[in-house]
Amino acid sequence: MAEVLVSSVVEAPVEVTWETIRRFDAAAEFLPFVETSPVEDGREPTAVGAVRVVTQKDGGVFREVLVAHSDADHFYAYTFVGSPIPVRNHRTTLGLRPITDGDRTLAEWSSRFDIAPEHEAELVGLMETNFLAGLQALSAQLAAR
Amino acid sequence: MAEVLVSSVVEAPVEVTWETIRRFDAAAEFLPFVETSPVEDGREPTAVGAVRVVTQKDGGVFREVLVAHSDADHFYAYTFVGSPIPVRNHRTTLGLRPITDGDRTLAEWSSRFDIAPEHEAELVGLMETNFLAGLQALSAQLAAR
Amino acid sequence: MAEVLVSSVVEAPVEVTWETIRRFDAAAEFLPFVETSPVEDGREPTAVGAVRVVTQKDGGVFREVLVAHSDADHFYAYTFVGSPIPVRNHRTTLGLRPITDGDRTLAEWSSRFDIAPEHEAELVGLMETNFLAGLQALSAQLAAR
Amino acid sequence: MAEVLVSSVVEAPVEVTWETIRRFDAAAEFLPFVETSPVEDGREPTAVGAVRVVTQKDGGVFREVLVAHSDADHFYAYTFVGSPIPVRNHRTTLGLRPITDGDRTLAEWSSRFDIAPEHEAELVGLMETNFLAGLQALSAQLAAR
Repeated sequence: MAEVLVSSVVEAPVEVTWETIRRFDAAAEFLPFVETSPVEDGREPTAVGAVRVVTQKDGGVFREVLVAHSDADHFYAYTFVGSPIPVRNHRTTLGLRPITDGDRTLAEWSSRFDIAPEHEAELVGLMETNFLAGLQALSAQLAAR
Repeated sequence: MAEVLVSSVVEAPVEVTWETIRRFDAAAEFLPFVETSPVEDGREPTAVGAVRVVTQKDGGVFREVLVAHSDADHFYAYTFVGSPIPVRNHRTTLGLRPITDGDRTLAEWSSRFDIAPEHEAELVGLMETNFLAGLQALSAQLAAR
Repeated sequence: MAEVLVSSVVEAPVEVTWETIRRFDAAAEFLPFVETSPVEDGREPTAVGAVRVVTQKDGGVFREVLVAHSDADHFYAYTFVGSPIPVRNHRTTLGLRPITDGDRTLAEWSSRFDIAPEHEAELVGLMETNFLAGLQALSAQLAAR
Repeated sequence: MAEVLVSSVVEAPVEVTWETIRRFDAAAEFLPFVETSPVEDGREPTAVGAVRVVTQKDGGVFREVLVAHSDADHFYAYTFVGSPIPVRNHRTTLGLRPITDGDRTLAEWSSRFDIAPEHEAELVGLMETNFLAGLQALSAQLAAR
């Protein structure tokens, strides 16, 4: 199984950071590589079972279903549906933890999946690059407020 | 802080049990002491942030907000809004775990909250009674299918 | 990644069950397929970092290092050292949860590891058989007290 | 129930940080307010069940029992035995999480306990002050290497 973990300090309090990212369709608002990320069929953006369509600026399209969401513990998790990338047992989680010293946030973006060995390094590399760029952009956006 | 935990074996596989309870408005369908449990404002019954109105057969009414939900790990959590019972820092969680030996389910219903000492025993007792009656009714209903 | 989960109801309270299994060298006392399971070098049997040598009745020998232990939450975890079975990223966890209805225990024995595809089914099958036999023997032993 | 959480960024990789703090008797080596912290009776410093005697520089003495330890997940937990402070249901946990961006560590020191209302603010304040001073001293010590 491949496992990816990217974590970065976000220069904003955890409540502010969570408010920015908690809607499953908000990806396009804080991820620089995402063009659009609407939820299908008018579903609510915090409804477990809702599907979002992430269209990346490079043209890649991913349909992702929300499999867990927690306002209580500040995380959500999703898996691919109809992905162009053939993975199995996939789950990606984006979660936040308070850093009380400085009233900041640790953002953790992790994924695990099974994939054919010849494709593992490519997908792991892509996720690591995108997750880090995403968290750093989120921090820059919130720090600039 | 008061802590309540009630757990009981449900005589059905975890996927069947979860399908029965996963909607936040399904309480009236498996809890013998609940008359109605609709979600307000046409919200989706798995949307974190949705509020359900639980009307008990004894006339008691509770408004509860969904604060976490997970199809991935088979649990949801909620807290009171506008409760007649003055508690603070309340969270109740209903979750399921597979019992592979026999293909059954362990259902765990737990709650924690701060409450004035003179009311603690009453609310703890009420929860313990209701949670156990609810889980046993759920098991009986599923075993009878 | 291969994942194994075996869980079974033990007919004894969680405190009694934990007392029986909590020492890392106690395996031979409740697992019918284990001949001996001493901890090496006089280490303490709850010391994280301690190594036990499990000699099975079929002659198989496993050296296992304790990587986590919790009296607070009733579990311990270990990984192989110098195993005859070539696995990577292995961790096995044995944990207990109270079943309040009947004052019993749910025992959960789970493992995850990477292994060459041609050996996966064999090791998964061996673990499932041994874990289930072990938990059922534990329950029988405690129920007979 | 009172709950305390102090978290701070440590300027060292998680493996280095864990190596520094993982022994239960290492408190005196990284906490500026601790004079000595030996484990009693020659017990091993990662053995769950071991008791350490923390003598603070202000003269305060605490006996604490290790109730959980994990090399796998980088945390340990303890509770008071024979404390001069009358608390109930106490557990304190010191844990680490990797911050991959910069190869640093988030250290989280948390505690929860029941205490008489008139003493709660004092103990919470003391813990918050000590935990923060401790984590900042740990970071300074490791960054200076």
